[in-house]
Amino acid sequence: FSSLYSQIELNITQICLAKECSEDEIVEELLRLNEDPKVHGIYLHLPPASLTSRVLNTLKPEKDIDGISDLNMGRLVRGDLSKVFVPPRASAVLDLLEKHDASSEGKTILLVGGEGSFGLTLQCLIEKNGMVALKSNWNSKSLQRQVCLCLCVCNVVHSYSRWLQEQQYQPWHLRTLKLQPLMPVPSDIEISRAQKPKPVDQLAEQIGLLPEELEAYGRSKAKVQLSLLNRLHAQPDGKYVLVAGITPTPLGEGKSTVTIGLVQALSAHLKLNSFACLRQPSQGPTFGVKGGAAGGGYAQVIPMEEFNLHLTGDIHAITAANNLVAAAIDARILHESTQSDKALFSRLVPSVSGVRKFSPIQISRLRVSLNTTVSAAVVSTTVTTHRIMSIVDTNDRFLRKITVGQASTEKGLIRETGFDIAVASEIMAILALADSLEDMKNRLARMVVGTSRSGQPVTAEDLGVSGALAVLMKDAIKPTLMQTLEGTPVFVHAGPFANIAHGNSSVLADKLALKLVGRDGFVVTEAGFGADIGMEKFFNIKCRASGLRPNVVVLVATVRALKMHGGGPNVSAGTPLPKEYIDENVDLVAGGCYSNLRKQIQIAHLFGMPVVVALNVFRTDTQAEIDLVCQIAKECGASDAVPCYHWAQGGRGSIELAQAVNEAANTPSNFQFLYHLEMPIVEKIRVIAQKVYGAEDIELSPEAKAKIDYYNQQGYGSLPICMAKTHLSLSHMPDKKGAPTGFVLPIRDVRASIGAGFIYPLVGTMSTMPGLPTRPCFYDIDLDPVTEEITGLF
Amino acid sequence: FSSLYSQIELNITQICLAKECSEDEIVEELLRLNEDPKVHGIYLHLPPASLTSRVLNTLKPEKDIDGISDLNMGRLVRGDLSKVFVPPRASAVLDLLEKHDASSEGKTILLVGGEGSFGLTLQCLIEKNGMVALKSNWNSKSLQRQVCLCLCVCNVVHSYSRWLQEQQYQPWHLRTLKLQPLMPVPSDIEISRAQKPKPVDQLAEQIGLLPEELEAYGRSKAKVQLSLLNRLHAQPDGKYVLVAGITPTPLGEGKSTVTIGLVQALSAHLKLNSFACLRQPSQGPTFGVKGGAAGGGYAQVIPMEEFNLHLTGDIHAITAANNLVAAAIDARILHESTQSDKALFSRLVPSVSGVRKFSPIQISRLRVSLNTTVSAAVVSTTVTTHRIMSIVDTNDRFLRKITVGQASTEKGLIRETGFDIAVASEIMAILALADSLEDMKNRLARMVVGTSRSGQPVTAEDLGVSGALAVLMKDAIKPTLMQTLEGTPVFVHAGPFANIAHGNSSVLADKLALKLVGRDGFVVTEAGFGADIGMEKFFNIKCRASGLRPNVVVLVATVRALKMHGGGPNVSAGTPLPKEYIDENVDLVAGGCYSNLRKQIQIAHLFGMPVVVALNVFRTDTQAEIDLVCQIAKECGASDAVPCYHWAQGGRGSIELAQAVNEAANTPSNFQFLYHLEMPIVEKIRVIAQKVYGAEDIELSPEAKAKIDYYNQQGYGSLPICMAKTHLSLSHMPDKKGAPTGFVLPIRDVRASIGAGFIYPLVGTMSTMPGLPTRPCFYDIDLDPVTEEITGLF
Repeated sequence: FSSLYSQIELNITQICLAKECSEDEIVEELLRLNEDPKVHGIYLHLPPASLTSRVLNTLKPEKDIDGISDLNMGRLVRGDLSKVFVPPRASAVLDLLEKHDASSEGKTILLVGGEGSFGLTLQCLIEKNGMVALKSNWNSKSLQRQVCLCLCVCNVVHSYSRWLQEQQYQPWHLRTLKLQPLMPVPSDIEISRAQKPKPVDQLAEQIGLLPEELEAYGRSKAKVQLSLLNRLHAQPDGKYVLVAGITPTPLGEGKSTVTIGLVQALSAHLKLNSFACLRQPSQGPTFGVKGGAAGGGYAQVIPMEEFNLHLTGDIHAITAANNLVAAAIDARILHESTQSDKALFSRLVPSVSGVRKFSPIQISRLRVSLNTTVSAAVVSTTVTTHRIMSIVDTNDRFLRKITVGQASTEKGLIRETGFDIAVASEIMAILALADSLEDMKNRLARMVVGTSRSGQPVTAEDLGVSGALAVLMKDAIKPTLMQTLEGTPVFVHAGPFANIAHGNSSVLADKLALKLVGRDGFVVTEAGFGADIGMEKFFNIKCRASGLRPNVVVLVATVRALKMHGGGPNVSAGTPLPKEYIDENVDLVAGGCYSNLRKQIQIAHLFGMPVVVALNVFRTDTQAEIDLVCQIAKECGASDAVPCYHWAQGGRGSIELAQAVNEAANTPSNFQFLYHLEMPIVEKIRVIAQKVYGAEDIELSPEAKAKIDYYNQQGYGSLPICMAKTHLSLSHMPDKKGAPTGFVLPIRDVRASIGAGFIYPLVGTMSTMPGLPTRPCFYDIDLDPVTEEITGLF
Repeated sequence: FSSLYSQIELNITQICLAKECSEDEIVEELLRLNEDPKVHGIYLHLPPASLTSRVLNTLKPEKDIDGISDLNMGRLVRGDLSKVFVPPRASAVLDLLEKHDASSEGKTILLVGGEGSFGLTLQCLIEKNGMVALKSNWNSKSLQRQVCLCLCVCNVVHSYSRWLQEQQYQPWHLRTLKLQPLMPVPSDIEISRAQKPKPVDQLAEQIGLLPEELEAYGRSKAKVQLSLLNRLHAQPDGKYVLVAGITPTPLGEGKSTVTIGLVQALSAHLKLNSFACLRQPSQGPTFGVKGGAAGGGYAQVIPMEEFNLHLTGDIHAITAANNLVAAAIDARILHESTQSDKALFSRLVPSVSGVRKFSPIQISRLRVSLNTTVSAAVVSTTVTTHRIMSIVDTNDRFLRKITVGQASTEKGLIRETGFDIAVASEIMAILALADSLEDMKNRLARMVVGTSRSGQPVTAEDLGVSGALAVLMKDAIKPTLMQTLEGTPVFVHAGPFANIAHGNSSVLADKLALKLVGRDGFVVTEAGFGADIGMEKFFNIKCRASGLRPNVVVLVATVRALKMHGGGPNVSAGTPLPKEYIDENVDLVAGGCYSNLRKQIQIAHLFGMPVVVALNVFRTDTQAEIDLVCQIAKECGASDAVPCYHWAQGGRGSIELAQAVNEAANTPSNFQFLYHLEMPIVEKIRVIAQKVYGAEDIELSPEAKAKIDYYNQQGYGSLPICMAKTHLSLSHMPDKKGAPTGFVLPIRDVRASIGAGFIYPLVGTMSTMPGLPTRPCFYDIDLDPVTEEITGLF
């Protein structure tokens, strides 16, 4: 009894307005309370003269806790009770209640009331079928009053139980969009434009989101509130599928299209709930070489231009936050180095009516014990080094290396620095790894953004800027809901770099999606680069942060990349493909399968994961090549290996993959991490290099060694490792295809993202600012000002 | 007859699906068409087997153009006809139609059909009262078929006339929010948080916006589509009110709060429709010194944190667009100077299957006649000078002067430049002045962003980037709807600098609002800085671009600023106010009134405008001082002068101002421009300097003269003038208060914003990148991660 009781907390609101309230004002307030789902009952504590029939008619019957008049009584009973009873007068109600009371077979609401209805407390038990009977233990009220109250309570309980039911997990009733693929396959933007997306609020309703959990951004995108995680707390998670790839050619092998094709097949064709969780692309490359990242062909997120452009502004928020820190630290260094301690103190703690006081926020942020004889020394952090780069979401190569502070107002504090592309910001990695607003705020505060005079790390918190960062990022933390070409749901959220960061979409999007799909549903997410990088980081960094455990790895391969690993000539963007890649060549394919594909399957097995190989079929692939890949993949330990035709056919072309994934997800996985966090940093790097990359050993530069010592000393030794290595080879040498062995992996330098929570060793040089080529994508991009149609995006 | 006929264009959609369509698919398509307001009728051109009862039941009766079955017939008649008739069978329908036909008194729908309903065309006349009768001239169909068709057409016409009515101007039914001001007045963020805004879709509905015209961004902000201008094309504009100010102290005199207080008074208290059109503030200063710009006290836009932070991403879009141009031009210079013409050409016009072809977009953008012997010379624009600054929406003083291109990848093309704050971008000025998507795109294309080797201007169009800019800005062009503390509507749109640009919110927001308020309503907008700058530019630049004519100028004054102009000591931020400003001093007040206030009134009179002086009352102002200001203002020619108490009281405190504005708006205004565009540039500058500022003459530097010659030569001579002058004095010397005379205005340099469409002479040095002070605002800004409440914004 008591356990059920604790589930029910009714929120009863009292309306008790000041004397001068007009009828209009009371009605207005009532209209608001009627619509507020958090208010389950309303008690009208008003002078009798204010209880006009307009006021009483405004109050929703199911919220009337008081049953204040017979006029109201006539409208009171709704819901199930109305099936047996239309209440003419209170006495009839009583009869009914008594009848039910007599015949109740465990269907009881126990009602314990105080003297008046104002102080009413409720203890209710609701039977599943919704039919209720009532008992009351009032004894100082007239019979009619009791009945009246019981009846009202009954209504409130009904209303509340309906509300409670709405809060439960709702099975999906997804209406998918029909796809009629054309041959030859049109351009991505033409395909996207030809399909009208469902209004996002309809999509949300179809997958069991409540209206109050949705924040629309236009018609086809919406942010989803994190409160969903509380509401569906008890709901078991769905299956968790990671899409990774073999070592790719520079042209990319289509992990995103496989991911989208797979959920289209699962949801629209196998009728299994599924969600794709994708990274938000950087806007810079959209106008440079790469184009967009919304998938391609008949496996796309729509509208693709919304996906590829501003989306819901998350990257812009990251830019604002990152650059505020960058500006704050420079300004701080300037003010500290050009003012006396006394002047500094009097500005930082200004005198108000002759008294200098720290603001509460300053005290909490200064991390020092304070007394009345404070001085500038404790107020300022005496920052000397600036460690954070400014960012823009534009491919601006001229900002790679710059000198700032050259205006006279900066008093000679010139320094050399550079801009990164926005998604390279540590704040992006934080967004991707945070699992709540509080966690994000704490991670933002922990970011090390400079070094103090004494060599200690200076954090965003030390600068007093972490509150402002959290304010700037408060909406970015909510994942964005969109849909595939077939109207199935997609979350787009976060897109950190895959070398200097971990290259995976957000923990929060995955968590929300796993609740929404239900126990038998699927969440498919994607890891950047090859499995040796993206998948390894997904397991060792993202899964550690989230606590989630994956069920299946889908390993994407193409005949093109396999031929390259089998010894085919170089492949590069902008030049025509050599004929080996156009004509059938089973020897090259076999060579690639037995080297890179086998090795990547083995890497997944290191983590105890079943692997399904998805061969992303191109027009030039022959049946013999396709069959060979599938055969060798299974030989090498894949649970299954199937060809996929989503690019040309949509979800229908990936049904076989969906079935294979569904089957593999029902085999038990024995997930395990590759290393313990307590291992020394060097050992963690070595384990990854040897077991994942196939290296003989690692070799640390003196700089790298010194950094590791420093990080150990600062207590960062137990963070996971995020390798910054080329994605074009399992080794550090982009030319070594297949599965190289016997090499020594050089660690040039080691850096740390303390807020994001990882150490990143640099193997080679990583560019964090792409450039624009001679003929950038934007040459073909245009907007028709009349139809508002966009051309040239891909 | 024919004129009425032309008003009605019915959009009849035919459903004619391929054979393999399932019932599910037909139903799905029908559901979509049912909801599409652009489809007025649906004809089911399907094989009989597909016309299942489920299909027929899905089709909305009011869209059934065909009346394809008796089953359907039973549901056909809705709307007014149902009052007189419930149709059992077709014969009864016929009776009814004949009866109406006989008694029709001009209430006729003439129906002319072809042989079958598939080729049906309609000519309809609808009577205002909605009751209709029908005639038909079919003669080759059975009686029943005719009736059937007539009836269906009748339904369609009903449905269409309802739709047509929805398209008409809707009177407002605004539900205002009640305000209960506290004393002492709490902080801005506390006041904002204490008032729950209406959901923005409710607000939109209350002011006559259609749901399809709204794009929500979360719950309290929405973009409004420009199609509204077409829909309400015939609707007369409301009254147009400009809020300007006297020359301010560095603390600001509260033009924004007056603007917001005035619309709160008009809408919530006088029940006159009104709209405030405000500028979007830059995010940088919010975290620096200035704080937000959402008004203050009980005259605010709510939620103020949404207003002050990312809003709907317009400034972020401007940043993306501006920086894309900046990066494009640098990359272009790099590629042109490091590649041979041949290499350049082969990259710009790549060979596809052995053929080199210009893309259509390249051809239209290159502005040269092309033949088959094209070379790189015609493809490249040979840019040598970079004229556009990169921007960030952050107060980052270290970016004021920087050196870029220092990485080895940029091959020694090092240059000195700097970043501006985002709102200083020419693109912001373009957004503010554009009056359609097409106009914005053209202005973006015309932006001069560099100089060619031959000294000719290079535009964004020449760089091939204008299409991409339009794509990036396609959502930013839609104004954002928000609300005041009293639930009255506000547009927030664009916020160009008031010195190097024109400092006014957008033309489009004003135009939309003028349609929405209706003939007797008010649109109140605000011009940056003092009237000598913001108002002058509002008239000569913004009104020229928009074609709109204002009705009233509200001139904001404070006792504080008047005392300063009357000879009071200096006022500056961060230091306590001298006692002259705290104690009563009628002499100083009178001095200020007879100098600066009088001059600013005279400036408005130059343009033929009636002026209402709004005295923004502070706590320290005495009754004698207040009375004196009002008395002298009227003496100096103001139509009226009233004290305002909106900061402490909300709209109730500005009722007197609202009444004065309403009265002044009903006096005829004789608006005129200050100068003709055909006047020489120098003369236009001189007229402004002499007539507005009170200067004796102007003096041009040699640089300024040379620039003017160049602009004349380029054909820019007939653009309006946008003076870049200090706002702290009518002269160019910030210390000269009151109404200085006898000075010579020095023109240091002259620049041009060709896309925005103005020449801007520089009088002194303008900072376009603010800095962070020793104790920036962000020290006090925080976010509670549980309640999501923000503290410290103001």
